[in-house]
Amino acid sequence: MDVAFVLYPRMTALDLVGPYEVLGHQPEVTSHFVAASREPVTTDAGLVVVPTATFAELDRADVIVVPGGGGWAEVLEEGVVAAWLRVAHPTATWTASVCSGSTLLAQADVLDGRPATTHWALRDELAARGAVVATDRVVVDGSVVTGAGVSAGIDLALTLVGLIWGDERARFTQLLIEYDPEPPYRAGSPESAPAELVALARGVFAGR
Amino acid sequence: MDVAFVLYPRMTALDLVGPYEVLGHQPEVTSHFVAASREPVTTDAGLVVVPTATFAELDRADVIVVPGGGGWAEVLEEGVVAAWLRVAHPTATWTASVCSGSTLLAQADVLDGRPATTHWALRDELAARGAVVATDRVVVDGSVVTGAGVSAGIDLALTLVGLIWGDERARFTQLLIEYDPEPPYRAGSPESAPAELVALARGVFAGR
Repeated sequence: MDVAFVLYPRMTALDLVGPYEVLGHQPEVTSHFVAASREPVTTDAGLVVVPTATFAELDRADVIVVPGGGGWAEVLEEGVVAAWLRVAHPTATWTASVCSGSTLLAQADVLDGRPATTHWALRDELAARGAVVATDRVVVDGSVVTGAGVSAGIDLALTLVGLIWGDERARFTQLLIEYDPEPPYRAGSPESAPAELVALARGVFAGR
Repeated sequence: MDVAFVLYPRMTALDLVGPYEVLGHQPEVTSHFVAASREPVTTDAGLVVVPTATFAELDRADVIVVPGGGGWAEVLEEGVVAAWLRVAHPTATWTASVCSGSTLLAQADVLDGRPATTHWALRDELAARGAVVATDRVVVDGSVVTGAGVSAGIDLALTLVGLIWGDERARFTQLLIEYDPEPPYRAGSPESAPAELVALARGVFAGR
């Protein structure tokens, strides 16, 4: 089973690595890291990752994972990820996005009229692109699975493992990565965080 | 503030990227990725990351983060990470480990007689190396912060942000990464997972 993780400059590394850690260890999986070129890609805060294939070299995969990140607006403008998704999505068994990766799926018309989720600060952005935006952490609609912001990629990927290989496999994976979260604060959603922090965070996203 | 993330072959990418995503965006932080050489490092399931410095080139940092992973037994045997920690830890403000990274801290005598945590399947391994092993998800003891398995790196790093810059900063970071976890299963700890899965997972770790 080929899993293609999309890479692009300034992407959020955790949007990639949450799903990678969960999916990449399944014995059936071969992971591919696909980008516009084979040049190393600098992620959001300086970590450099290396593609294994270009979009031209790999045009199909059983599972596609599109992360979000700081570079999503530029990538939308270039259209290179959406162009690849128009080719690769129709033959994929599952197509998934994390965070602002959802806007790239929308650009490729994957989310037209579909229920989908995204980072809480980008719900209007996604709705404007034709998706029926939900506030859930993970949304499964047919073959398309979307996740909320950044850390939701772990929940999304465990959901996907359950759908593909069953609950027992997903539980085993969860146990191996000791995913028994204990956030030291209660501030992970706009409902739980102080209002002034929510406003500040919206400003960060608006400025991108 | 210089944060040094240690890289080595077969390390668990999420042990690195959880803390990276939380610490790397703090405006005061410059992230460094330190390894035995500048050669790209292949992590646990094929993702390749690129070091920015060798252990010889960077011998001090304000914060040190040591991830765990499949290669920890080989790295223990080589002793190269422990040798670097003996130089870098005494001048660091904070030294942290995720998952089996704790055994590398122990090898460098950082955990002698200290309370510390690690991946649930490696508690005996860590106790045998002189630490006072706790079952907590994150343990702070003086300047040393240890985390449980893999995904605990996110909780650890948010704890560290709170200690360094205060609760408000940590809450803001948690909101930006929408860390409002909703694991689709209840199986992330040996207490919550079915006993047969716990036995199977212990076997995986014993076989490393």
